[in-house]
Amino acid sequence: MYEVEVKVPADLEAVRARLDDLEAAPIGAVVQEDTYYDAPHRSFSETDEALRIRSERPENDPDETRLTYKGPLVDDASKSREEVETAVGSGEKVDTVLTKLGFEPAATVRKERDRFELEDYTITLDRVDDVGEYVEVETEVASEADLESAREGAFDILERLGLDPDEQLRTSYLELLLEG
Amino acid sequence: MYEVEVKVPADLEAVRARLDDLEAAPIGAVVQEDTYYDAPHRSFSETDEALRIRSERPENDPDETRLTYKGPLVDDASKSREEVETAVGSGEKVDTVLTKLGFEPAATVRKERDRFELEDYTITLDRVDDVGEYVEVETEVASEADLESAREGAFDILERLGLDPDEQLRTSYLELLLEG
Repeated sequence: MYEVEVKVPADLEAVRARLDDLEAAPIGAVVQEDTYYDAPHRSFSETDEALRIRSERPENDPDETRLTYKGPLVDDASKSREEVETAVGSGEKVDTVLTKLGFEPAATVRKERDRFELEDYTITLDRVDDVGEYVEVETEVASEADLESAREGAFDILERLGLDPDEQLRTSYLELLLEG
Repeated sequence: MYEVEVKVPADLEAVRARLDDLEAAPIGAVVQEDTYYDAPHRSFSETDEALRIRSERPENDPDETRLTYKGPLVDDASKSREEVETAVGSGEKVDTVLTKLGFEPAATVRKERDRFELEDYTITLDRVDDVGEYVEVETEVASEADLESAREGAFDILERLGLDPDEQLRTSYLELLLEG
């Protein structure tokens, strides 16, 4: 499964009004706290990989923690990567296992996310601590061959939300946080 | 938490009869499949650590998968180690994450375990594929100071089961499998 994801800076209140006009369906808010790890045996910034523990507090559901590996970009235009993710019983225990193995927490990104659905896309309004406000448009495709059309669809959605695909951010919140 | 564990080779049917005489309480059977990993950046056989994914199929409960880190021996006499363990949603996904990070499956140990409780100890009758039949007596203590008396208690239980503490096996099933 490949994730297509485009992200631009945005005034969230203006986007919220457009989503309302487009009758996009709200699918819930969540607070996410992501801890990214450095590896002992290679530099993830050089290999363009990431290892993350995500703790999620949804509005109406129980907390959930997941372990995620992100592989290098396969399509630079849409920031597509291979992702492998699984739920874990205890984020603290996984943190301890990783630390014992020599992995080290590099940074923690905390954000409030408000999600909407429009056609085949998920639109996420992000308020990221110490970073800023952004809108992400994303979808998943089964094969690399479908990436290009999925990316064009995402750009179209951005335009309908009054946002400029040319302002697409190619850096992650983690990088923005580390730069800031 | 420290685990005290002593293990000896045994004729399981003879031990079963003794457990019955001692009125030990059966607490269920389970099939365990453990995959151990090699690390890309250090030799776990040299550092005396282990990283494991355990898939467990209990008699009457849903399957469960756990990720476990085992630290080096803290007490050689009782084979005590620090253990950090957490449930994971998908063993396959964790395997993929580990593999992507450069960890490699080294060996898989499969065993049928039949467990009993006697006083503060858990007694496990193990039939290990390609390795043999063993009895483990184990308990947990909160601090290193309690290890010695817990170990003596485990030896006492072994004797009551007709087993010889001097036959204690200091190697793991994994090592036995790799040696065999």
